[in-house]
Amino acid sequence: MRFHVSCALEYEARFPSTLILNVHAQRTPSQTILDETFTIDPPLATTEFSSADSANRFVRIESGAHRTLVVNYAATVDCDVHIYRAGDVAVTPVAELDGATLPYLFPSRYCQSDRLSRLAWDLFGDIGNPHAKVVAISDWIYDNVEYLRGSTDSMTSAYDTVTQRTGVCRDFSHLGIALCRALNIPARYYSAYAYELDPPDFHACFECFIGGSWVVFDATRLAHLNGLVRIGTGRDAADAAVASIFGSATCTRVEVACQLADRQSFAPIGRRQLSRSGVASTDT
Amino acid sequence: MRFHVSCALEYEARFPSTLILNVHAQRTPSQTILDETFTIDPPLATTEFSSADSANRFVRIESGAHRTLVVNYAATVDCDVHIYRAGDVAVTPVAELDGATLPYLFPSRYCQSDRLSRLAWDLFGDIGNPHAKVVAISDWIYDNVEYLRGSTDSMTSAYDTVTQRTGVCRDFSHLGIALCRALNIPARYYSAYAYELDPPDFHACFECFIGGSWVVFDATRLAHLNGLVRIGTGRDAADAAVASIFGSATCTRVEVACQLADRQSFAPIGRRQLSRSGVASTDT
Amino acid sequence: MRFHVSCALEYEARFPSTLILNVHAQRTPSQTILDETFTIDPPLATTEFSSADSANRFVRIESGAHRTLVVNYAATVDCDVHIYRAGDVAVTPVAELDGATLPYLFPSRYCQSDRLSRLAWDLFGDIGNPHAKVVAISDWIYDNVEYLRGSTDSMTSAYDTVTQRTGVCRDFSHLGIALCRALNIPARYYSAYAYELDPPDFHACFECFIGGSWVVFDATRLAHLNGLVRIGTGRDAADAAVASIFGSATCTRVEVACQLADRQSFAPIGRRQLSRSGVASTDT
Amino acid sequence: MRFHVSCALEYEARFPSTLILNVHAQRTPSQTILDETFTIDPPLATTEFSSADSANRFVRIESGAHRTLVVNYAATVDCDVHIYRAGDVAVTPVAELDGATLPYLFPSRYCQSDRLSRLAWDLFGDIGNPHAKVVAISDWIYDNVEYLRGSTDSMTSAYDTVTQRTGVCRDFSHLGIALCRALNIPARYYSAYAYELDPPDFHACFECFIGGSWVVFDATRLAHLNGLVRIGTGRDAADAAVASIFGSATCTRVEVACQLADRQSFAPIGRRQLSRSGVASTDT
Repeated sequence: MRFHVSCALEYEARFPSTLILNVHAQRTPSQTILDETFTIDPPLATTEFSSADSANRFVRIESGAHRTLVVNYAATVDCDVHIYRAGDVAVTPVAELDGATLPYLFPSRYCQSDRLSRLAWDLFGDIGNPHAKVVAISDWIYDNVEYLRGSTDSMTSAYDTVTQRTGVCRDFSHLGIALCRALNIPARYYSAYAYELDPPDFHACFECFIGGSWVVFDATRLAHLNGLVRIGTGRDAADAAVASIFGSATCTRVEVACQLADRQSFAPIGRRQLSRSGVASTDT
Repeated sequence: MRFHVSCALEYEARFPSTLILNVHAQRTPSQTILDETFTIDPPLATTEFSSADSANRFVRIESGAHRTLVVNYAATVDCDVHIYRAGDVAVTPVAELDGATLPYLFPSRYCQSDRLSRLAWDLFGDIGNPHAKVVAISDWIYDNVEYLRGSTDSMTSAYDTVTQRTGVCRDFSHLGIALCRALNIPARYYSAYAYELDPPDFHACFECFIGGSWVVFDATRLAHLNGLVRIGTGRDAADAAVASIFGSATCTRVEVACQLADRQSFAPIGRRQLSRSGVASTDT
Repeated sequence: MRFHVSCALEYEARFPSTLILNVHAQRTPSQTILDETFTIDPPLATTEFSSADSANRFVRIESGAHRTLVVNYAATVDCDVHIYRAGDVAVTPVAELDGATLPYLFPSRYCQSDRLSRLAWDLFGDIGNPHAKVVAISDWIYDNVEYLRGSTDSMTSAYDTVTQRTGVCRDFSHLGIALCRALNIPARYYSAYAYELDPPDFHACFECFIGGSWVVFDATRLAHLNGLVRIGTGRDAADAAVASIFGSATCTRVEVACQLADRQSFAPIGRRQLSRSGVASTDT
Repeated sequence: MRFHVSCALEYEARFPSTLILNVHAQRTPSQTILDETFTIDPPLATTEFSSADSANRFVRIESGAHRTLVVNYAATVDCDVHIYRAGDVAVTPVAELDGATLPYLFPSRYCQSDRLSRLAWDLFGDIGNPHAKVVAISDWIYDNVEYLRGSTDSMTSAYDTVTQRTGVCRDFSHLGIALCRALNIPARYYSAYAYELDPPDFHACFECFIGGSWVVFDATRLAHLNGLVRIGTGRDAADAAVASIFGSATCTRVEVACQLADRQSFAPIGRRQLSRSGVASTDT
């Protein structure tokens, strides 16, 4: 599918600060950027770089003496996903994991899988098919955690959410990741532009490594699993923050959009389709 | 310097289990392995692989029906470090960090730098020279945390240690890392064989990225900073565990050794030398 | 029922220390002590006192220069309980609580009811009958938490147990208390000698204020609800520790016994009977 | 001293709710209420009661069908305190504590003294004089924790504050209490009307039991220690909340005042005077 994505961000800086933004769509074999613009007003110099272990595209901005920064990003992106049949997916045993997937088994700042082990095995340990297992995890989160804007903050982790039972997409994803890792399924954070997300915003989902591919799940059920344009991949939100700020800058406006690029027929895949099929990345 | 390192590990497995060991010395530009042996009794097949974002060498072992595994590793390793003059080190501004160092600024499972921010700035914010700043962090940990075997476990994190004030080398390192990151200094975990460590064991230190290099510190003061043979690098202990066990296996014996390879003169660099000089990796 | 209870405790003190023991059976309208002995070897002077807000009987011992203390307590106690019909119990609205019950609605050290609110309402909010509600809480704990000796320590709280899902009687009680308070049911900790507890030890249960009485529950299902001799009542284990030690003393031996005083017929009330009836204190 | 105190509180209830308010000045031997008015608009019936273990005066209000409640309280209160000479105060050994003071040695919801033990002894263990010791605790909190409105919430505890280092009067008090208890000094929460508090609001301090009396300290340094009219006493804020709400009601307005009753000369006692003298309750 081809999508137009865009965001407009405004920051107020009280003194010279460094911003590291992660809003660019990734360039990967499965995701091609056809055109792209990135502007800052005032027109400051920027540095783009990628992290060592992902295709995340960071842009560093020095505010200098400027008090107000307006950032605009827009792109047209072709995204490719693989739809697989749920019943066919085999467990990837730990014995087949390699150096690329292993780090996503380890606990991270917001996904303390080591502390959720017994709970995860009690709730989901008996489910054999790995696709069905992660669907069950996703459903459990959806059923037990209330989506409540403003109920959590940047310090909230899966260990909190599993008990406090409120959160936003970031928290739903962290809990999904932590439960998967506790069950020895590699899992990672996935930030994205999301088609028909309502209200429009940046979105977060999670991916599990099952059947030899990275498969996407959304415990909030707010996004189409085949309607995502990938921005960031990481162990958790610490790796894929929209903005990391060093100094003192406050975000005063966020506008995000994601639309079909032209008259295409879009057959959404969401929770209803997951009993039969899943959505996997075509990247390895 | 040239070191002979070795370890002998014994595991009891109650049922077929997967072990992922990280005991091999790294191969890097600064660390050359002259000879190396790795044996398992019984002689099981193993798979060696590296993680995507580090030179850590993992070995995967399937215990199969065997109840007892004995692992022996031995190597002769040439290690190179760079001794720098402390006063010359300049701060590396966030504006100069790149994709290789940035991930080590983010909070991780055991190093919740986001929660230690104010404490770090209150205690160390006024120290300008980055070498002096990390020396002060190291000293503060040494002065305020008691080294107490058995006082912590695999779930203990920097957020606990800063208040509970006991721990082992792993905990000292996590707290050092968390405080550095809170001050916008990239920091990472460093597991190693350590010359003249008493009693002999695997050791953990931490590295900070200052003056354009990774510089090593040991808040326990138990190791010579130029007497380390690197095994693992990571965000925290989650990335560099000696053994990750999937299934049910218990470690029943650990023996570790690290000796000078031949008659060399060794001028140890420890806390006393840090007022004048530091020990940096020659890798980038 | 009439019970013989006894305990023998041995402590090693490294230097002069103060011990505050809470092993005496309470004297209350419903619990009469027929005879009682308390001895210390060596025969040190002791002070007995009660806490302001409970009938807990504390004994303070100064070890002085003695390195080993052996404490023996034995008593014959008549206990009275009220068996009520489960269906008849009405909710006690907050509007009818008074100063004696209100403190047991507040969160305490090990029972952070404020953090379990949403979970408690999601799981148990729909159950109208208060007896059935607390039975459901008890059952949920029994079904989801594994009784595992040594899996927790003196810092473990309900907030940990609800996720980590292992514990001992103390942890089961804390979780029951926290869930009740989260549902606006006053609940308190109850330490006791327990008839036919296997293996014999001090035991902990919890009480809820429903239908105008304090009703006892045991989420571990290890004790007969009408086979308890009350030692301590409190907000949580902090109020009813067997021993609070100031200085340095280590418990080296614990022996506990609780037997029927003579040939009585004992009709135990445990989980099976709770669908029809409950066991309430006859004290107010 | 004689004070006029008053508060006006407004609540919006979405459905019938129960409010338990704790805004009345205590009646104790040292605090005499000369006149007092308490009104609700609309004029609902109320029930007043005290808790079992304190002189806290709770008022229970049922909102019924009313959506808006306005509560007004005003009183004229004579308060008596004892000014003692700091150097004369002796430690109260645990061996002299009794049932009235012992509960204030135990950890509570927001004052996890058990987890702060080593920190407390490291920082303050060497100070012999108990008055000087608590002054040092108070000073340390003042120096290391920033008073920052809105930086904490109702779940924040001393264990958080000691590391996160921001808070309001409630957090400063909790940390003071936790550190004192960790050092075997009974300590309790003290909510009050405070003369010349700027801006006017309800205030919280803490009291320690030293030299046989309850002595008041204010780590925020915002109140005069002899300018307090006691509302609540408790183990922590859980026992002395201004309002406990069962149902759904939101506080929409708070106005608090505390003034000298007539032309009296007031010699304030604050941090500056504490090197020579302290302020103790004349109640036992």
